[in-house]
Amino acid sequence: MSRQSNRTTDSKKMNSELFTLTYGALVTQLCKDYENDEEVNKQLDKMGYNIGVRLIEDFLARSSVGRCQDFRETADVIAKVAFKMYLGITPSVTNWSPAGDEFSLILESNPLVDFVELPDNHNSLVYSNLLCGVLRGALEMVQMAVDVKFAQDSLRGDNVTEIRMKFIKRIEENLPAGDE
Amino acid sequence: MSRQSNRTTDSKKMNSELFTLTYGALVTQLCKDYENDEEVNKQLDKMGYNIGVRLIEDFLARSSVGRCQDFRETADVIAKVAFKMYLGITPSVTNWSPAGDEFSLILESNPLVDFVELPDNHNSLVYSNLLCGVLRGALEMVQMAVDVKFAQDSLRGDNVTEIRMKFIKRIEENLPAGDE
Repeated sequence: MSRQSNRTTDSKKMNSELFTLTYGALVTQLCKDYENDEEVNKQLDKMGYNIGVRLIEDFLARSSVGRCQDFRETADVIAKVAFKMYLGITPSVTNWSPAGDEFSLILESNPLVDFVELPDNHNSLVYSNLLCGVLRGALEMVQMAVDVKFAQDSLRGDNVTEIRMKFIKRIEENLPAGDE
Repeated sequence: MSRQSNRTTDSKKMNSELFTLTYGALVTQLCKDYENDEEVNKQLDKMGYNIGVRLIEDFLARSSVGRCQDFRETADVIAKVAFKMYLGITPSVTNWSPAGDEFSLILESNPLVDFVELPDNHNSLVYSNLLCGVLRGALEMVQMAVDVKFAQDSLRGDNVTEIRMKFIKRIEENLPAGDE
């Protein structure tokens, strides 16, 4: 199918500003549609999830990254390959839990929030929450259940933006009996 | 202000796929919110306009493009600099009207519609209509009133995507009496 072959051969590099402003239009629309910030956050996460489950295929095709050996390798691939590819930034990976099942992505800058100032009446809005959903959805498609949330947000006065990721479990592939 | 200086010094190049899927989420949301395709088209144009009036400042800062001498130069700057910068593609400029006040941008490929198939019940949806609004809004900020619309759309079975642009008038800058 031509659409498919386009996607693998034809990578379009673009500046982030049109994306940033379009994302702003999306969040603004959701703030009109839903009653409170919590509902908007939920909706952003859900939209992100649906994006993630589709984006992973594109990511695997472009990056030729194979199966990760452990969660540390997954963290590095997310930060150095995936964020670089789709957002043009490379967060640092840090704050590992002793058990190695939790880490943080620290974003020195977050392209989604360029041009943005949160109005006073949206104190609970997690503006970039789409990203959590994208990560959750994409990882689910490679059999990893993770919990993803913002721990700090420069938009809300923190010095950096921190996404906290927690490994929950490996998802068993349910193959029909008889298949290998 | 730090936000401002970030924007001029720190250009983030990203692949288009996350933008494409996020734009899809926006259009899907609008299709839920509004009763018919015409309303969605209108809303996309309006959102695009609001984006365009903000994006132009970023564009002028990054591109160091000066004031265009005529509509032909404007057409070239849009195709070769602006589209390249924000969408990673370079449309061709063609189909000039004899009077030189209308031209078409032909997009061999349109990153906004990767992954997209229009459902049957959205025959009148101009999926990428945001782009028309962006162009209209951005040009208005440099004193050009233009009419922008899709003349062909690959998403609706046409061979290419064609954006038709018509110069309407130069907008006079209303300076207070006494200013030069």
